[in-house]
Amino acid sequence: MRKGEKTRDLILDTSVRLASELGLEGLSIGRLADELRLSKSGLFAHFGSKDDLQVQTLERAAERFAEVVVRPALAEPAGEPRLRALFERWLEWPRRVKQPGGCVFVAASAELDDRPGPARERLVALQKAWLATIARVVESGKAAGRFRADLDPDQVAFEMYGIGLVCHLSARLLRDPRAVERARVAFERIAADARLRS
Amino acid sequence: MRKGEKTRDLILDTSVRLASELGLEGLSIGRLADELRLSKSGLFAHFGSKDDLQVQTLERAAERFAEVVVRPALAEPAGEPRLRALFERWLEWPRRVKQPGGCVFVAASAELDDRPGPARERLVALQKAWLATIARVVESGKAAGRFRADLDPDQVAFEMYGIGLVCHLSARLLRDPRAVERARVAFERIAADARLRS
Repeated sequence: MRKGEKTRDLILDTSVRLASELGLEGLSIGRLADELRLSKSGLFAHFGSKDDLQVQTLERAAERFAEVVVRPALAEPAGEPRLRALFERWLEWPRRVKQPGGCVFVAASAELDDRPGPARERLVALQKAWLATIARVVESGKAAGRFRADLDPDQVAFEMYGIGLVCHLSARLLRDPRAVERARVAFERIAADARLRS
Repeated sequence: MRKGEKTRDLILDTSVRLASELGLEGLSIGRLADELRLSKSGLFAHFGSKDDLQVQTLERAAERFAEVVVRPALAEPAGEPRLRALFERWLEWPRRVKQPGGCVFVAASAELDDRPGPARERLVALQKAWLATIARVVESGKAAGRFRADLDPDQVAFEMYGIGLVCHLSARLLRDPRAVERARVAFERIAADARLRS
């Protein structure tokens, strides 16, 4: 990796962390410069505008998500092991890639749902891609004969997403120590429902 | 109802609508005064501080939620009809009590999860009360012999909450026209799982 790319990744990793704490709207080139002890003008060379900073921060978070959640899960055998790996890695994601204020995508979703613009568009595309990834994992389990043939992959994706959201809210807002345990129980019901009927 | 109470309710209903659009943090006494065409000083008589305005807005939203979601659902027969009424009315809540930016509680949850203070405390209490209401409805269905005896009411509440969250996000952020339909399918799986095993 060239030095320029390394610097860029370092800047964006800090930006992901800040976006988790302050929200994408709270993120600014000035604040990022303070955090990195770099000059604002230096950062302006990387990001032309706040929109650009927001979009690139989301992109970087998605790259990291692919790296720590999606790719390792796809290495597991098709069917339940792959779906479970995806789910477990997803739960760990705000710790594996440090996000002290919780998942940047969840935080950004609430912020941007009514704010048209490039950041919202990018977020929507990334969230749809995540749902499509879950659906594809279900599809591959069906193709391998490990999930029942009439299982609806998009429905599984929708429900898994719901478990992720309530787990995030229970853990962060309600400080419920049983959030992850409850999320796992919910996932097991989805997995049981996906199995071939004997 | 006395005139003072009526005025107060009118002010707070406007505040709930604004909080849905701008978030609780975007809400201010000045902005509320503009919206209502009242003087700022008049409003300061009702709300001593921004914290107070946020807390009272949450309280008012909770009153309206009890009125349009919880109380009518509790009038239904124990078991599946009552749980389903609770679920269906919950899905309609951001339209029944006008919240153009979506459910104020969902918006506030993302905003306040890292901000200690009276508004966060109130929100947490209200969200826990909502989970406890769902759990009680499950409990009453068990007591009436309509749900299986080993059903975990808190787990049902957790999972129903997840469906509500993903439905909200799919409808608002992703503009998925099938969000409500998918939420209903997910609910039917919960209801089926709750039934007595024959």
